[in-house]
Amino acid sequence: MGVPSTKPAVVALGGGHGLSASLRALRHVSDRLTAVVTVADDGGSSGRLREELGVLPPGDLRMALAALTDDSDWGRTWSAVLQHRFHTDGPLDNHAVGNLLITALWELLGDTVTGLDWVGKLLGARGRVLPMASVPLVVEADVRADDGPCTVIGQVNVATAAGRIEQLRLHPADPPACPEAVAAVRAADWVVLGPGSWYSSVLVHLLVPELSAALHETSARRCVTLNLSPDAETSGLTAVDLLDALHHHAPGLRIDAVLADPSAVEDVGAAEEAAVRLGARLVMRQVALGDGTAQHDALRLAAAYRDVFDGVLGDVTPGD
Amino acid sequence: MGVPSTKPAVVALGGGHGLSASLRALRHVSDRLTAVVTVADDGGSSGRLREELGVLPPGDLRMALAALTDDSDWGRTWSAVLQHRFHTDGPLDNHAVGNLLITALWELLGDTVTGLDWVGKLLGARGRVLPMASVPLVVEADVRADDGPCTVIGQVNVATAAGRIEQLRLHPADPPACPEAVAAVRAADWVVLGPGSWYSSVLVHLLVPELSAALHETSARRCVTLNLSPDAETSGLTAVDLLDALHHHAPGLRIDAVLADPSAVEDVGAAEEAAVRLGARLVMRQVALGDGTAQHDALRLAAAYRDVFDGVLGDVTPGD
Repeated sequence: MGVPSTKPAVVALGGGHGLSASLRALRHVSDRLTAVVTVADDGGSSGRLREELGVLPPGDLRMALAALTDDSDWGRTWSAVLQHRFHTDGPLDNHAVGNLLITALWELLGDTVTGLDWVGKLLGARGRVLPMASVPLVVEADVRADDGPCTVIGQVNVATAAGRIEQLRLHPADPPACPEAVAAVRAADWVVLGPGSWYSSVLVHLLVPELSAALHETSARRCVTLNLSPDAETSGLTAVDLLDALHHHAPGLRIDAVLADPSAVEDVGAAEEAAVRLGARLVMRQVALGDGTAQHDALRLAAAYRDVFDGVLGDVTPGD
Repeated sequence: MGVPSTKPAVVALGGGHGLSASLRALRHVSDRLTAVVTVADDGGSSGRLREELGVLPPGDLRMALAALTDDSDWGRTWSAVLQHRFHTDGPLDNHAVGNLLITALWELLGDTVTGLDWVGKLLGARGRVLPMASVPLVVEADVRADDGPCTVIGQVNVATAAGRIEQLRLHPADPPACPEAVAAVRAADWVVLGPGSWYSSVLVHLLVPELSAALHETSARRCVTLNLSPDAETSGLTAVDLLDALHHHAPGLRIDAVLADPSAVEDVGAAEEAAVRLGARLVMRQVALGDGTAQHDALRLAAAYRDVFDGVLGDVTPGD
């Protein structure tokens, strides 16, 4: 036995670019880091693999693994290979190589988690990547559109639906959670929800019953990280709306900290009140790259997570 | 500097299963082993990738790399991933994962040899794998069929042509050889031709001008390893016919040893004479698995290569 870690065990839940941004920051502040990743994607390379081979959509898992890659010549090269997409006039067009590799490992080894662990070993990943459920999921949403209410099916459709999402559901409604993901949540010091596509990548985790139970019952503290800017799902929604949507989908879930970039909070007072409704303190930090894009700076976000985890929660809002 | 190697530097030329069998044996007797691999395949997964992406056909290169894989949990697993084929009702059907991975490395790194070296590093390969030419090749053959002479184009067609192959050609006729392959041949202690599809995987190397020049001019000694049984290309041909076909396509090439399994030589006296026409000694060793299949036993073949390389050339024919 060497010197024991003093860093917290952290589980980050989400999907897509939002989760990747979170992981690129969290790898600096946790050496027992687990990503729990949505498996409801039905678009692009993942959607085609899911349809052709009946596997979990691998794309969000691949992106999470890439975000955790060891920063070495070896890690960078294999990560770039996994992220590489073919561009052809034929049937391989747009397939990400990592999606094909992950699918092959699943077929060969017959186990989802073992396959992902092998990709993690290849990349020297600074953490573990797990699916939120053991079966592919279909996400469905009740949407209030201008021309009346409607139901939208599939992640691509939900993510691009015109109108306000009122209620999210999963098919199957009671999917088996990934046991290792449930165990990681229960053993964590902190769990982090978001950033990411708010409904289809973040809130969707609360609809997997065993995972939701673990999130409610864990002794871990909980941090919600808000997005830097609205996307198609959250067009027209404020930080308050996002927090209220979380409260609506998991009314009993107590949150400890809501981390937000000042640029993404229109009304600080109202956002503080929405955070308090979740049991949380609003922590404002500049975590954006600050170049006009809606991208996180990994080190600023890492420093903000350290503040949150260490309980340094004083507001650093503009004008203070 | 550690203790210098006393094992010979060996270059094995061929393709497909024959080259793989040779490499699985040669890895025991050489620690400076280079495979030089045909790039004329136009069938299966390789043919489709060649057509869709314009790359060298990767399949024979992948098989050679797999044959050199380090015998460890890590090596075996990644080799199995690379050899894994998808089986679907869709467009990924029959693609070997390693073909996709090699293609991605080529696109990403922009260099054929560097890409192959990275796959070798992944597998802990006990040797280096190089293409015989830097561009995809088309093989063409004049065939004497029952209904008269004809010309057959493409490796799949040549390998399955009904009739006797009389003359082999390449398109382009003067392809650039892989410089590293040429250098390896020139620096070798031994070069090994065959086993393998005699025309489309073995003799084809003699049609790449720079590679052929290196094979003729190298100070290395040369070993020809005959097949265990005829395939579609060599149906009806004897060991003598195969050696004469080699002599026809490279009349000035001096061979030192012809290695053959007794089961594959009908007329030992005639085969010895054909070997002598090449300048070679016929070395007979049981190198087959001996289970009725036409497969080599890697250790028997390794021991036979050691005999050849050490000059222990006494015949060990049945009845001696």
